[in-house]
Amino acid sequence: MLYHVTMTVTLPPDMDPAEAEDIKAREKTYAQDLQAQGIWRHLWRVVGEYRNVSILDCRDNAHLHEVLSSLPLFPWMQIEVTPLCRHPSSIREGDL
Amino acid sequence: MLYHVTMTVTLPPDMDPAEAEDIKAREKTYAQDLQAQGIWRHLWRVVGEYRNVSILDCRDNAHLHEVLSSLPLFPWMQIEVTPLCRHPSSIREGDL
Amino acid sequence: MLYHVTMTVTLPPDMDPAEAEDIKAREKTYAQDLQAQGIWRHLWRVVGEYRNVSILDCRDNAHLHEVLSSLPLFPWMQIEVTPLCRHPSSIREGDL
Amino acid sequence: MLYHVTMTVTLPPDMDPAEAEDIKAREKTYAQDLQAQGIWRHLWRVVGEYRNVSILDCRDNAHLHEVLSSLPLFPWMQIEVTPLCRHPSSIREGDL
Amino acid sequence: MLYHVTMTVTLPPDMDPAEAEDIKAREKTYAQDLQAQGIWRHLWRVVGEYRNVSILDCRDNAHLHEVLSSLPLFPWMQIEVTPLCRHPSSIREGDL
Amino acid sequence: MLYHVTMTVTLPPDMDPAEAEDIKAREKTYAQDLQAQGIWRHLWRVVGEYRNVSILDCRDNAHLHEVLSSLPLFPWMQIEVTPLCRHPSSIREGDL
Amino acid sequence: MLYHVTMTVTLPPDMDPAEAEDIKAREKTYAQDLQAQGIWRHLWRVVGEYRNVSILDCRDNAHLHEVLSSLPLFPWMQIEVTPLCRHPSSIREGDL
Amino acid sequence: MLYHVTMTVTLPPDMDPAEAEDIKAREKTYAQDLQAQGIWRHLWRVVGEYRNVSILDCRDNAHLHEVLSSLPLFPWMQIEVTPLCRHPSSIREGDL
Amino acid sequence: MLYHVTMTVTLPPDMDPAEAEDIKAREKTYAQDLQAQGIWRHLWRVVGEYRNVSILDCRDNAHLHEVLSSLPLFPWMQIEVTPLCRHPSSIREGDL
Amino acid sequence: MLYHVTMTVTLPPDMDPAEAEDIKAREKTYAQDLQAQGIWRHLWRVVGEYRNVSILDCRDNAHLHEVLSSLPLFPWMQIEVTPLCRHPSSIREGDL
Repeated sequence: MLYHVTMTVTLPPDMDPAEAEDIKAREKTYAQDLQAQGIWRHLWRVVGEYRNVSILDCRDNAHLHEVLSSLPLFPWMQIEVTPLCRHPSSIREGDL
Repeated sequence: MLYHVTMTVTLPPDMDPAEAEDIKAREKTYAQDLQAQGIWRHLWRVVGEYRNVSILDCRDNAHLHEVLSSLPLFPWMQIEVTPLCRHPSSIREGDL
Repeated sequence: MLYHVTMTVTLPPDMDPAEAEDIKAREKTYAQDLQAQGIWRHLWRVVGEYRNVSILDCRDNAHLHEVLSSLPLFPWMQIEVTPLCRHPSSIREGDL
Repeated sequence: MLYHVTMTVTLPPDMDPAEAEDIKAREKTYAQDLQAQGIWRHLWRVVGEYRNVSILDCRDNAHLHEVLSSLPLFPWMQIEVTPLCRHPSSIREGDL
Repeated sequence: MLYHVTMTVTLPPDMDPAEAEDIKAREKTYAQDLQAQGIWRHLWRVVGEYRNVSILDCRDNAHLHEVLSSLPLFPWMQIEVTPLCRHPSSIREGDL
Repeated sequence: MLYHVTMTVTLPPDMDPAEAEDIKAREKTYAQDLQAQGIWRHLWRVVGEYRNVSILDCRDNAHLHEVLSSLPLFPWMQIEVTPLCRHPSSIREGDL
Repeated sequence: MLYHVTMTVTLPPDMDPAEAEDIKAREKTYAQDLQAQGIWRHLWRVVGEYRNVSILDCRDNAHLHEVLSSLPLFPWMQIEVTPLCRHPSSIREGDL
Repeated sequence: MLYHVTMTVTLPPDMDPAEAEDIKAREKTYAQDLQAQGIWRHLWRVVGEYRNVSILDCRDNAHLHEVLSSLPLFPWMQIEVTPLCRHPSSIREGDL
Repeated sequence: MLYHVTMTVTLPPDMDPAEAEDIKAREKTYAQDLQAQGIWRHLWRVVGEYRNVSILDCRDNAHLHEVLSSLPLFPWMQIEVTPLCRHPSSIREGDL
Repeated sequence: MLYHVTMTVTLPPDMDPAEAEDIKAREKTYAQDLQAQGIWRHLWRVVGEYRNVSILDCRDNAHLHEVLSSLPLFPWMQIEVTPLCRHPSSIREGDL
């Protein structure tokens, strides 16, 4: 089941650089692992912002919350979730 | 080059049903043709709304405008465009 | 799976009263049938507005869209959907 | 008498973890006690956010304010209250 | 129990003047009757707008909804309700 | 002459408790003195928020500004002022 | 006593031109008469919009409401009122 | 050439009082000097807020920017600029 | 002197096509004439919207208002004006 | 390909002045270098704000993101990107 998610990151400019790098590295590993599992279907950067647009494929609402609240950057993120469903004009089989 | 586009449709409730059906049929044909060409990459329905979320792959800004302004439902749509680029954590080759 | 839904109705003041009554009667039948099935779990009126707050229990996003887009008042509604999940402090077994 | 309440929590990311855990533990005890008394009727998590949607059953406005302003997380919460009443199409006896 | 209510009226400029006068006359009678009963405690005009600020004293949420939805101008009003309670610094006995 | 005023207080959660108590105590004394003088006509708490709704009776705009800018909590307040006048349907003599 | 007022006019594009001219002519006469009396102190056009910014000098709130609600264009206007008072750094005697 | 400018000041409540007084004193001198030159035509306080409404008469946009960006309080201000021109109904010669 | 202007056009979908074509043709002639004179410096289409972004070079605010209020599409436009000045880092001589 | 970009800078008032000067100097060098290359086509200051309006000419979305995210002031900027295309009424050859 698909969800449209935007994640906007706000790190304080005076954050310790080593801490910031560590969090970002863990975020990257986490995001790539979920992509490899097929859960995080798409991940795009919004041009000019520290924001992404993502499509996640989760079993249900609880699964999505578990995935999002475990993001290493979660405490610095503003997240918006929009549930999606198949569009009657879509010809793409996988976009359920 | 990818763009995130949301299209919200507002048809007046008293529109002539035959006219509405005709426009929607042309919209569907148009959308499916662009999907078959690989230009309209994804098309999802937002749950509970007459709105879609789409990912379009266009040559440039002018191409995207030509595609959007030719939509049969364009006069009844509110459209928002967000340029996308590859996310450094993406592992999906096609999501350029 | 639970969703929080608000539905705001805007009927034009000059709508034909018989037509309005007919739509509202069909809306009521539809809403009560879905409640009897356990799908429309809660339905409350927001005080002073032609708006309701509802909790729906659907199989998935597609099911919710089907339920909402079939509402007789759908063309006159503005709908907002928020996916819910169990709160770690909830003690109510059914509020999954 | 029922009220719809949303509570959004914003803890500073650099809060002392022990203090945060203590506040959250007291919040949980407080919330579960009010649920056991039948005052806090429903408590759901909004997916992807540190926010809940709640239904509270209070004697009157003053009672609701007393309940909310005593929340251990109150100083870090943004709260929105919407008074509810029975919907004419509701078939659920308890949703007064 | 007190509620703060704002009512904003939007009558179409081309409304039949006789109909408008009739509705306003019934609104006035209704408002004055509720004031005489002590339910509509205060009623002020917002300067420069077709909007009022009111304080209503109702038994409960359902009573308030009944009062507001019976306003002759209700179909042309946008209404916002805010529940009030006694302020700890208030010295005015009646402002419960 | 009457004004509708809302005051929203935002004290930093890490403010020194003794300082906060001192300011609140001075605020209470100030508010009660103005009520006793008949200037601060009504003072209500908005349920669930650190916000009040007030009706002030001042000689003119300058008087109102003097009253508001002297509030001990003024530096931590967001204030909104709406000028009121008598409503043509009001039957309450004092609500000029 | 001074008030800052913005008035935004929205005339329907299909309004009868003769009716529109008549209303505008009466509006102009009304505005110039109030300026001659010293009540409408300043009247400026906002560049690129059918909107003005005005400073009115009225005896009190009721006087201002009487002036504004008598504007011939009032039914087509959105009006915002902001009460002003003397600025402590002002050197202009008349700007009370 | 006239511009409508609003300036909203947000000084942190914990700012060193001596520093704050110094900045405000320089701001006052600066504002009064520009008023004496006829550049800062009007300066009013918005009631209940740390905000002013001003009318400035500058040679051009660059002149206005130079005046505003030199305000001693500029780093703590949120500024909004609206270009004005003569209103066709104005009878006041100087309000060009 | 430069101004940044956005113009958003909203033509009713049921406008007479011949009338719409006539207005648009006059708009085009008008816009091209002003471009040829060097007043309308830049004119771009916002992708996916019936909106443009323009840079106009006018003698003063009054000149800009005259130019904008004479647009054939003016009654159907929402216009926003932002005064510009030279940026200290600009190396482009003409962008005064 | 052209993009309309607004950049709003928020430096904390208590930032170390030497650090601020260093960042601004690097920002200026960076901006002028991109202008010299023809990538940063226009750069204007918004009057009265620490904000600019820019037109950038980039190969594609990825190129624009690379340019923007490398700005020395990027961590203190709020950036909005709007894709542009040629307006059918434009007579300026370069404004593609």
